[in-house]
Amino acid sequence: MTYHDSAQGRTAPLGAAPPLCSSTYTNALFHDVLPFWEQYSLDREVGGYFTCLTREGQVFDTDKFIWLQARQVWMYSFLYRVVAQRPEWLQVAQLGAGFLLKHGRDENKDWYFSVRRNGRPLVAAYNIFSDCFATMALAEYAAAAALSEHTGLGLNSGAVPGSGRTPGAGPSADEARTVALETYRRILPRRENPKGRFTKQVPEGRPLHAMALPMIGVNMAMVVQAALGNEAFSDIDLDPEQEITANVERVLGLHLDRQAQRLFERVGPNGTHPDCMDGRLLNPGHACEVLWMIMEAGDQLGRRDWIDTATEALLWTVEHGWDRQFGGLYYYQDAQGFPPEKLEADMKLWWVHAEAIYAFAAAYEYTGSEQHKHWLERLHTYSWERFADPDYGEWFGYLTRQGLPSNGLKGGKWKGCFHLPRALLKTGARLQRLEKAGILS
Amino acid sequence: MTYHDSAQGRTAPLGAAPPLCSSTYTNALFHDVLPFWEQYSLDREVGGYFTCLTREGQVFDTDKFIWLQARQVWMYSFLYRVVAQRPEWLQVAQLGAGFLLKHGRDENKDWYFSVRRNGRPLVAAYNIFSDCFATMALAEYAAAAALSEHTGLGLNSGAVPGSGRTPGAGPSADEARTVALETYRRILPRRENPKGRFTKQVPEGRPLHAMALPMIGVNMAMVVQAALGNEAFSDIDLDPEQEITANVERVLGLHLDRQAQRLFERVGPNGTHPDCMDGRLLNPGHACEVLWMIMEAGDQLGRRDWIDTATEALLWTVEHGWDRQFGGLYYYQDAQGFPPEKLEADMKLWWVHAEAIYAFAAAYEYTGSEQHKHWLERLHTYSWERFADPDYGEWFGYLTRQGLPSNGLKGGKWKGCFHLPRALLKTGARLQRLEKAGILS
Repeated sequence: MTYHDSAQGRTAPLGAAPPLCSSTYTNALFHDVLPFWEQYSLDREVGGYFTCLTREGQVFDTDKFIWLQARQVWMYSFLYRVVAQRPEWLQVAQLGAGFLLKHGRDENKDWYFSVRRNGRPLVAAYNIFSDCFATMALAEYAAAAALSEHTGLGLNSGAVPGSGRTPGAGPSADEARTVALETYRRILPRRENPKGRFTKQVPEGRPLHAMALPMIGVNMAMVVQAALGNEAFSDIDLDPEQEITANVERVLGLHLDRQAQRLFERVGPNGTHPDCMDGRLLNPGHACEVLWMIMEAGDQLGRRDWIDTATEALLWTVEHGWDRQFGGLYYYQDAQGFPPEKLEADMKLWWVHAEAIYAFAAAYEYTGSEQHKHWLERLHTYSWERFADPDYGEWFGYLTRQGLPSNGLKGGKWKGCFHLPRALLKTGARLQRLEKAGILS
Repeated sequence: MTYHDSAQGRTAPLGAAPPLCSSTYTNALFHDVLPFWEQYSLDREVGGYFTCLTREGQVFDTDKFIWLQARQVWMYSFLYRVVAQRPEWLQVAQLGAGFLLKHGRDENKDWYFSVRRNGRPLVAAYNIFSDCFATMALAEYAAAAALSEHTGLGLNSGAVPGSGRTPGAGPSADEARTVALETYRRILPRRENPKGRFTKQVPEGRPLHAMALPMIGVNMAMVVQAALGNEAFSDIDLDPEQEITANVERVLGLHLDRQAQRLFERVGPNGTHPDCMDGRLLNPGHACEVLWMIMEAGDQLGRRDWIDTATEALLWTVEHGWDRQFGGLYYYQDAQGFPPEKLEADMKLWWVHAEAIYAFAAAYEYTGSEQHKHWLERLHTYSWERFADPDYGEWFGYLTRQGLPSNGLKGGKWKGCFHLPRALLKTGARLQRLEKAGILS
């Protein structure tokens, strides 16, 4: 009995793009993407989520990857807090939050990278990102649970969707908040050595700063602030505004090279570019993602200069990152055009395009410029023609350079219920405002 | 100034395959592949080799990766010992052997994964493979140097090819032999925990055995035995025949599933197949490579049963690993047909095909069967049509599933002067014997 991957070996794209309007995004979110995850990912027996899902939703590996468990908890908690207090959304979040609190950490309170279906540990976290995603998940979950406790909606109010069974109560808001902040506090001193004992670079080697660190720094501070408010930061001796500012300035000051018009993934001290594969690495998807985070931070802190820089850098990123022969954004590039180290460099990934679409929706709202609108349309059309699966829903994760599914998977070790629904939700909201303002019809 | 990759974005294959005969292989080795590496890879200033080479041979990263440094030392030392005592081959080997001995190890005598051009360390070895390749390189170099010292040929007898300068003397046979055996001795107790402090799997996790370990065990024992003889093993308290047998039986007994007709990359204790991505992983290139090693071991130890099993398993491997839509062997597969974890799974890699060609040349010599001949021809035709670069020589490393160059690189972090020249040399020798015996015309 072997699985037949019906997406493999296709030679033509799948469909036409729906119109660029808010309802395309919100309909896809509420009537396609969320239902897919609710139907196939919930582990109603032991909690947590299955994320390794075939094109049709069949589970092909039951291991639980902490990044993805945490991201789905965050997603559903966020929906509950900002969209509507639907009990079923809170229950999905509870399923993962309970699993995370029960099985996610080792005896030192470090988060694992992965555990088995039943929670038995498998792989230790070899950097701080498991911890960062757990912090954001539990902070957002605490906000959702507090809202539910406050209003009496949701918590323990019914069955998990489709299960017919009543699950145990999810963790309390207090419990989740405590672990979120405890984890946040433990991350702070580890940021200069994020891999700890797993660091392969020798101390006397080539010093390189990875953009992922300031990027998750901005993201984490903004998520925790939105979920738990400024008062949470006094518990961990951090000033959220300073924290956001320091991390944004590290990206804009060190990683963004305004002369070269490139956002570099890794830089030497003072923003230098060591002439090696690592020093020349570009990651257009990561660039788009951090740039919208900087726009949102600029909006929140009244830093129009950040927004202006980020919206301009976004154009540099896609103008250089776009594949002029086959369309779509590359996954990795070498800034000098040399062959990239990663074999998958020329593939077209769902998250890269989802993040880019949202970044341009945001940029267009801030600038009103035709250039941002043009790229928003171009990314929208490419992505919906190629990634959306008209037969089984959700988006394909991985396309070849030519824009055809490399395989059919809807979820895996790295693709979960996160980038796509987050981008659909946020893009839908931006487009709705543009439509209300009469800027987009 | 950016590099333009002239291989990227091609839409048609490059050329026709030359005839399947020994001269195709030996001509390519001596008049194309070795000259390419001699022209572009030698770092005549500080020793060692550049391996990051564009399609045309331009160096795009000067870091030195110990696996590839060691493999090129092995290759040129082997040529010197078994083909002809050409001084220029020994000098190429000296260039790398001297660099390895001077810069390859840390203060604990563990080999690095990579160092900078000048030898300054960069990345620690995160498993035992750097050490294994260094052992094989220095053992083979010691044999070559001893031959040269004995005959007075080669050592210090002239300039590095094309440089016009006389290099320093290479390491002595004794020095290289001592470090080879010291490294081999240090590897033995580490084999049950090959990643040491870099192990991410938690002890209570899922126990999985990787085929790479018994595979390199067979390879290392046979290489050291051929280069230094049985007496070298008494220095490290190892019986070479026992060592080869134990490792072959681990592959054939645990990793080869005769019922499923698959060679599994990772297995649980007693050869079980945990139902997860790791437990279902197949790697057809690795399978072909270990199977020819087992055939050679069977030949040497008079174990016809190993040869029979390996030649049969080879057919299972390619019949399942061949892409029936676009041709070529997949890089990775899931034994149940589920989407593989690795994004590059459906790409066609030079080393996979070079190893498969040699494995079938060997199998055909052992069995004389039409099936092995058929696959030899099929692999030969596919590979020479697609991988060989008619414009700049050598082979492309990485093709898309459709069989077109994903980029033009001739060398990189993982592609050096090793798999292709080794396969060309060994295949040429097998085909020559088949031609002499009148089996191949």
